[in-house]
Formats: sequence, structure tokens, C-alpha cells
Amino acid sequence: MRTIVALCGGVGGAKLALGLDRLPVDLRIIVNTGDDFLHYGLPICPDFDTLAYTLAGLANVEQGWGRAAETLAVQAELAGLGETTWFTLGDKDIALHLLRARLLAEGARLAPALDDIRRRLGIRCAIWPMSDHASPTLVDTEEGVLAFQEYFVGRRCTPVVRRVRYGAGVGCPEALAAMTSDRLDGVVICPSNPVLSIAPILAVPELHHALAGRRAPALAVSPLIAGRAVKGPTAKIFAELGLEVSALSVARYYEGLIDGFMLDEADASLAPAVQALGITPFVAATLMHTDEDRVALAECCVDALRALRS
Amino acid sequence: MRTIVALCGGVGGAKLALGLDRLPVDLRIIVNTGDDFLHYGLPICPDFDTLAYTLAGLANVEQGWGRAAETLAVQAELAGLGETTWFTLGDKDIALHLLRARLLAEGARLAPALDDIRRRLGIRCAIWPMSDHASPTLVDTEEGVLAFQEYFVGRRCTPVVRRVRYGAGVGCPEALAAMTSDRLDGVVICPSNPVLSIAPILAVPELHHALAGRRAPALAVSPLIAGRAVKGPTAKIFAELGLEVSALSVARYYEGLIDGFMLDEADASLAPAVQALGITPFVAATLMHTDEDRVALAECCVDALRALRS
Repeated sequence: MRTIVALCGGVGGAKLALGLDRLPVDLRIIVNTGDDFLHYGLPICPDFDTLAYTLAGLANVEQGWGRAAETLAVQAELAGLGETTWFTLGDKDIALHLLRARLLAEGARLAPALDDIRRRLGIRCAIWPMSDHASPTLVDTEEGVLAFQEYFVGRRCTPVVRRVRYGAGVGCPEALAAMTSDRLDGVVICPSNPVLSIAPILAVPELHHALAGRRAPALAVSPLIAGRAVKGPTAKIFAELGLEVSALSVARYYEGLIDGFMLDEADASLAPAVQALGITPFVAATLMHTDEDRVALAECCVDALRALRS
Repeated sequence: MRTIVALCGGVGGAKLALGLDRLPVDLRIIVNTGDDFLHYGLPICPDFDTLAYTLAGLANVEQGWGRAAETLAVQAELAGLGETTWFTLGDKDIALHLLRARLLAEGARLAPALDDIRRRLGIRCAIWPMSDHASPTLVDTEEGVLAFQEYFVGRRCTPVVRRVRYGAGVGCPEALAAMTSDRLDGVVICPSNPVLSIAPILAVPELHHALAGRRAPALAVSPLIAGRAVKGPTAKIFAELGLEVSALSVARYYEGLIDGFMLDEADASLAPAVQALGITPFVAATLMHTDEDRVALAECCVDALRALRS
């Protein structure tokens, strides 16, 4: 079975990850942990959690984060105690955080702790954090430097971004092993926010080095379609960082690290410009409304990697 | 207003503490923290929590621990994740633990963190931990050394106790200040388990020294009535430690640290034997079924302290 590594952030990336997980491939996902933080002492891994809930069929799809059929008993009591929290703590979500807290308190590295959790959730594919170590992404804005969740959830991405700083911890051994495996058939960079979700993974020196020196092809899927993000602040941040807001700009962002680039059908006209970067363009329907859409795009990605290998 | 210090453990002690809190006295409670532990990363203070819930009118009186009208959404999800837990984690309870986790994570000592919590719960009297530092009580049993909650909740006090080891951390400054205050009019040792709840407080060197060198009288209330404990394993542990199972034995346990001893009416015949220890005996109805009972016993204690002062 082909080994495919997927680099993934939260919501958008998780959709494609779900599609890849449904294919007969040996999928290993490397997830961004730059958003991880301690909240009320709970170790929270927002991108891992969104990914895991999505793959396990437990995600709140309408809301875009958290668990379906969630309840808020703990948070109601916290409010009764005079606490106001900008980060919603659902009861089911808290249970996952507590389990993770127990595993980490007993001395587990983050990678085996998350592996234990994904198995308990019945998830088939491997999911490895980019690093076992805290690697917090900081957002340098016109209103000062903000911790990621403070920027993303607390301020709803409104402050203008000047620069993003990445934690760049030591690469997770299992993630690095997946990236350098002899059986690796290709790397897919999921359509997550390049600056906030993928760049933190690529800022981990060992993983950057492994991708830059790859023997199997790498393909990125554009999170921008017709100059707009499907969800989230990708377009806004690209503009604030002085980058052109287009799929072509995303291809340029990954230059040197990818061999192929998946454009949405709406951006087919950008194919020659992508080609001019020395990156092979592919075109597919990249909007994923249903699980069928996710599997179809995943198949296009696997096909593209096959084409890049030959 | 008279300053009264009460040394207190969980359920039984909390009942008298509630009575004392209803009187026009400046009450400062020093609570046992030898039972404190981390569970799923949550900092849990069982005796403080029982005391605080009791004083705030939030306790589950039938159950004897935890919150009234509690829900178990988080614990149900933990079970769904394959966790079996011997320590019930109610949702409202978790909220309190999370608040405490936040305060401690932000650098607060335990004492101000607990003080913040008791104020949020609307509790009038001061409650100070015996120590700001972890001072875990360990129970040396015929089945090996057990952490307190493992013995008390996990094993339901069934293993035979050979010895109890106390953490004996540095005394909490606020607790020590209360014990050595010029305005102190007396100390009440509440009818908590002497071995498991009061001895850990007395094992804190500064507090033991302050009580041994007291200038205001100290009075203990017997947790044993007619040779039986109202609740909990006091009688069982006394027997296992080779101590006579009687109120007189409790008076002997506190010898040198108390001036007066409150016997239940059922044990009035023990008064001469208590007197023979050099401890002034008092007799009252010490079973506390209602809040009126609690206030009545508290008044008896304050009266006894007044008698001991004169």
C-alpha cells in the first residue's frame, strides 16, 4: 500500500484528510501544533482536535469547530463562578483534554498521547504532531504580539498581521520517519492556511529539511479559490503580508518544496503561470461540501502524485 | 469580634464549621490539604471543596460529597473514550477545579487561589490551607503504601492501616498568622477524622508549634460517639492503629494540644477520665442533622472556649 504523508491544519485541511483516509493508502498525517495552548490548565490541541473529530465523524460541521451534540455544563458553571472565557469549552471537548492531560502527566510525549487518543476515537490513519515540544505560533500585529488563540479566537483575526513567528520545536520522530520513509509515495499539503497552519510545520527544521530533500513528489492543494479563501483568514493575511491574494501566490509560497500544485477549476487559467514556476499544475473541483467531494479530491491528489512520479 | 480558628477536614468538620460561620465571630478555618491530588491534571482539594460547598449551601448532603444538582457529561464522555475513573468528576466540580487550575497556573499560591474561590462562592469566613505546598498524606497499609485518595476513594478504606505518613509542608503564612494572632480567642478542632484529617494539619511544624504554644484555649470536638464514628473510617482506623475506639481515646490523641474536649451526651460518663488527662470536659449534643444542630453545637464550643479563658 502506498504511503502518503499529508501536512494538515484545521478545518479545510481536515476535509481533504478525511478524503485521503477513505482511500486504500497508508496515510500518515502531520498536524500543526503551533496553535496548541493551555487553557484553564487543559492542554488543548485545536488543529489535532478538529482533525480527529472530523476523521472520527464527531465534528460539528455547521459550526466548523468542536464536537457535534456538545453540551456546556462546565462552562455554565465557570460563568457562575464569575469567569468569562473567549474559548468555548464543551463538556465532550473537556473530556478529551482531560484524557490528554492524564497521558501527558504520566510522562507520555505528545506523539504517543495523540496516537492513543486517535485510536480510542477509532481513527485508522496515523496522526503525528509536528513536534512533541511546545512550538507556539505568535502573531505580530499592529496591536502587538498575540498568542495564536488570542489572535484567532479571542480577537477573531481582526488585528492587522505584520509578521508571524513560528515555534520551530524539534521535529517529532514519528513525523520525521514518515517523511523520510523509503515507502513514501508522496506528500500532500492540505488546503489549510499556508501562513498559520502549514508554515508552522515547515518551520520545524527537520521536517523542512526532509521536504526540501524529498525523493517522493510533493503536491499542495490551494486553499484560495478565485482569490478568496473558502473559510478563515487566509486571504486577509496574505494581503496584510503584502502577498498577492491568489492561488498562484500560494504556489509561490511553497516554491522549492512542492512539485505539483492543485488549482480549483475556477483558477484553471493560472496553470501556465504555475508551470512557469517549475511546478506542475493540476486542476480539480477543490470545494468540498460532501464526503464524496472529499474522496474525489483525494483521488485527484493521489493521481497527481502518480503522474509526478512517472 | 472574637477571632476563632477552626481546624477542619471534610464532611463532619464542615458541619461544625457551618455552625461557627453562622455565629458573630471572626472565623478563620485552616483546612486539611493532605488529601489534595492531581486527577486528569486537575488540582483537586477534596476537604476544601467539601467545606466550601457546605458553607456555600451547594453541597450534596445526601451523598456526603460533591455538589448538589450535579451532572456528569464530562465523565460520560471520558467513559466513552475508554476511561474508567474511581473518582467521580462532576461537571460543576470540574468547573471549580479548572478555575483553581487557572489561578495556580497564573502563579498564585494555593492560599490566595482558595481565598479567591471562597469569595466567588460567597463564603464569609476565611479559609486557609494548612500549607501552600503539596503535603500529601500517604496511608501505609497491609497492602502497601497508598496515596490518600487511592486508599479513601479507590479502595474505600478497606486495606488495614499500619501507619499514616504526613506531608508536613511549610505552614501557610495566613494560617499561621491566624493561629498566632493577638486577637485569637480560641481554637476549635472540628469533629473530623483525627488521624486522616486533623493530624496532617498538626504535622505542619509551624502550626503544631503555634498550637502547642497557644495563648488562647483550644477545644476539640469528638468525632466518636459511643465508640462509633458518625461517618467515615475513624473507628476502623483507631482500631487498626491499636488505639482504643472511644471519645476518650480521641482526647488522648490531642493531649498537650487542647485545653477542653467536647463529648457527646452519650459519652458523658467519660468526663472524669477526660478531666484526669488535665483536659476540661464539656458535654453537648454533637450529632448534627440540621443547620440548627450545627449552630447549637458551635455555640456550645464558643461557650466552652469562654469558660476555658476565664
